[in-house]
Amino acid sequence: MPTRSFFDIRMRGFRDRAEVADVVRLLDERVRSLGGEAVAVPEACGRVLAENVRAEVAVPGFDRAAMDGYAVRAEETFGAGPYNPLELRIIGESLPGRPFAGRVAPGQAVRIMTGAPVPAGADAVLLAELAREEAGVVHVSEAVSPGRHVGRRGEDVEPGRTVLSAGRVLRPQDLGLLASLGVATVHVIRRPRVDILITGDELLPVGARPEGFKIVDSNSVMLAALVKRDGGEPRTLPLLPDRRELIRDAMRASVADVLLVSGGSSVGQEDHAPSLLAELGELAIHGVALRPASPTGIGFLAGRPVFLLPGNPVSCLCAYDLFAGRSIRRLGGRCPELPYRSLPLPLESKIVSAVGRVDYVRVRIQDGRAVPLAVSGASMLSTTTIADGFVLVPRDSEGYPADATVTVYRYDDI
Amino acid sequence: MPTRSFFDIRMRGFRDRAEVADVVRLLDERVRSLGGEAVAVPEACGRVLAENVRAEVAVPGFDRAAMDGYAVRAEETFGAGPYNPLELRIIGESLPGRPFAGRVAPGQAVRIMTGAPVPAGADAVLLAELAREEAGVVHVSEAVSPGRHVGRRGEDVEPGRTVLSAGRVLRPQDLGLLASLGVATVHVIRRPRVDILITGDELLPVGARPEGFKIVDSNSVMLAALVKRDGGEPRTLPLLPDRRELIRDAMRASVADVLLVSGGSSVGQEDHAPSLLAELGELAIHGVALRPASPTGIGFLAGRPVFLLPGNPVSCLCAYDLFAGRSIRRLGGRCPELPYRSLPLPLESKIVSAVGRVDYVRVRIQDGRAVPLAVSGASMLSTTTIADGFVLVPRDSEGYPADATVTVYRYDDI
Repeated sequence: MPTRSFFDIRMRGFRDRAEVADVVRLLDERVRSLGGEAVAVPEACGRVLAENVRAEVAVPGFDRAAMDGYAVRAEETFGAGPYNPLELRIIGESLPGRPFAGRVAPGQAVRIMTGAPVPAGADAVLLAELAREEAGVVHVSEAVSPGRHVGRRGEDVEPGRTVLSAGRVLRPQDLGLLASLGVATVHVIRRPRVDILITGDELLPVGARPEGFKIVDSNSVMLAALVKRDGGEPRTLPLLPDRRELIRDAMRASVADVLLVSGGSSVGQEDHAPSLLAELGELAIHGVALRPASPTGIGFLAGRPVFLLPGNPVSCLCAYDLFAGRSIRRLGGRCPELPYRSLPLPLESKIVSAVGRVDYVRVRIQDGRAVPLAVSGASMLSTTTIADGFVLVPRDSEGYPADATVTVYRYDDI
Repeated sequence: MPTRSFFDIRMRGFRDRAEVADVVRLLDERVRSLGGEAVAVPEACGRVLAENVRAEVAVPGFDRAAMDGYAVRAEETFGAGPYNPLELRIIGESLPGRPFAGRVAPGQAVRIMTGAPVPAGADAVLLAELAREEAGVVHVSEAVSPGRHVGRRGEDVEPGRTVLSAGRVLRPQDLGLLASLGVATVHVIRRPRVDILITGDELLPVGARPEGFKIVDSNSVMLAALVKRDGGEPRTLPLLPDRRELIRDAMRASVADVLLVSGGSSVGQEDHAPSLLAELGELAIHGVALRPASPTGIGFLAGRPVFLLPGNPVSCLCAYDLFAGRSIRRLGGRCPELPYRSLPLPLESKIVSAVGRVDYVRVRIQDGRAVPLAVSGASMLSTTTIADGFVLVPRDSEGYPADATVTVYRYDDI
């Protein structure tokens, strides 16, 4: 019977679906962060530090004025008061980058601007507001203590201090700090390179118009954007028909850190990817107790993780986020958890789920309540654009009644 | 007296500091979103739709199987049961992209896989699990209703429907939906182009090592990263010394949508930017009741917003986030509010603030409590890297006692 394999396994479904928690555990055990690479500081925002950064210089590198005023010798002012004004002769000025070259001797002062070096001899800054200047003389009517309004050398950062630690996702202001320390390049964890292979006889390339019984590949653009979001570098391989030898060649040729294959991941006659992965490497997982992404396969090729994602776009998104994205985030040294903001919300209407599987339920958020979307099929990509987010129903749950509080993961960051 | 202007205005501080809320109102009134541009769908993730997108095709474009099984004429199965099995002759198979070309006549069925076109004549899919196939005949022991397990044409998206609305920040799955609709390019709001001009005699370029009384410009890298975060396209202009004619030339030459000038924004003799902006265009705001970013100027040059940001890195960050970033986000059609996650937390120790100004207070988050950072000066860039976020103390507040609940804006997204 030539077509017996058409859906002979699928008829009974997957014989042995893996639990979501077990899949996560497997990935966390076997996927480690990549090595580091040097990147110029201006390019490093959002990258993950591969090693601690220690300051080699002090910030500030010299005593500087924290306010505008007059650099003075503090002890000279100790007796000064409204009825006992002190007069200091102004011998020059100090500007940022243009310091006063001389030394402040007794009876002298130097005009100084915020950020300018405090000249030798002086040890405090008298606020401009508290003094009166006239004919080259400043009249001081208040005492100022030593060190007043002086940003001392090393006050912000002392040399030798670890200013940023390995694992840090660099913020805009971190780049500023690194630049001010004279750091030109930093070692950050390399971005995972991710190959995206889409297969299917029915598929037209992105940008084409659907025609006849052909549909347009939507997974490659979605996956590439997800990979970028997770800090990876996606590369989309040419679209392939369901021809075993072509898919084999493409899988063998990939040298990326991660390979994503979408389409042909199940157990039908056109589902070549699982058996190819088993043939070429290791098919560790095939079938997951997760709706709507049960036809997911996971394995390794030359030590690199391979994800066989369902061709169905919603299932593909779900399997990506829970498994592939998690691994890409781990490889890149990032927090592996779902990169969505989550919030607790009451359910507007009940969610029914089957014990024994995790359910990925799209919801809208309306008036502060989570409204489950009624969907007849997993194939409804529009549900993931209409939805504001999703709820994961755990395997041991039969779902939630209306008004129960659930954790909603929001698709949008804001 | 040649140096009278050294800090003649600063001596009294800014005469008339603008309220933060008034500055925000001014910007919201005068800064509108930019026009649209066409972008290929694969490049459009995170971009903001400039117009609604309507579906021109149906998704799916044809009736298709939602499950693996047999395409049948439902009414033929109505009497079928375990004790009255029906036999249908299998006349072929339908695969995705490889439909069955003929018509299903009475007494016939076609093997069908998920996603494959339902052949003419058939109107339902009998689940593979519920049938038994033998020698080219399928034995049906259960009735199936018309339309069962068939994804009907247009079920996901009907032609003419608005699938995504103007203002949408495109998600990865939105790109997938657009691709599946045959959309090749979308109109998105143009990214604001932002010129960054840094001035200061004391500054060395990023990548240099601080030396003598020179410090390294840290604001350009920080600002460029902030602009990118907010959806803009930064361009860093060459570093300039505090020379009025050079700064004037650079300000006049900028044709970007936004100009950021850092350094020389205050009222000292080297602070050329405010008077230049007044001379060349409009200096709408000079001095804001905001600590530590009071020496901030805001105006317009040929209708384009110009931000004079304090040279001090922390003040620069604060003024950028509250004013410049807000405007860049508005220009790009994005939500103008602070792009940080906020959360309510109890204070570990009190925050003291002065009535009449907004205070930007950096905090760490420890054991679920916000710990204000003790800082002696605004210049401590390291505080923004040590801090987990910040609290804004409103102008009418004297601060908060310990244990008060405050809103903390987190610097990191996750």
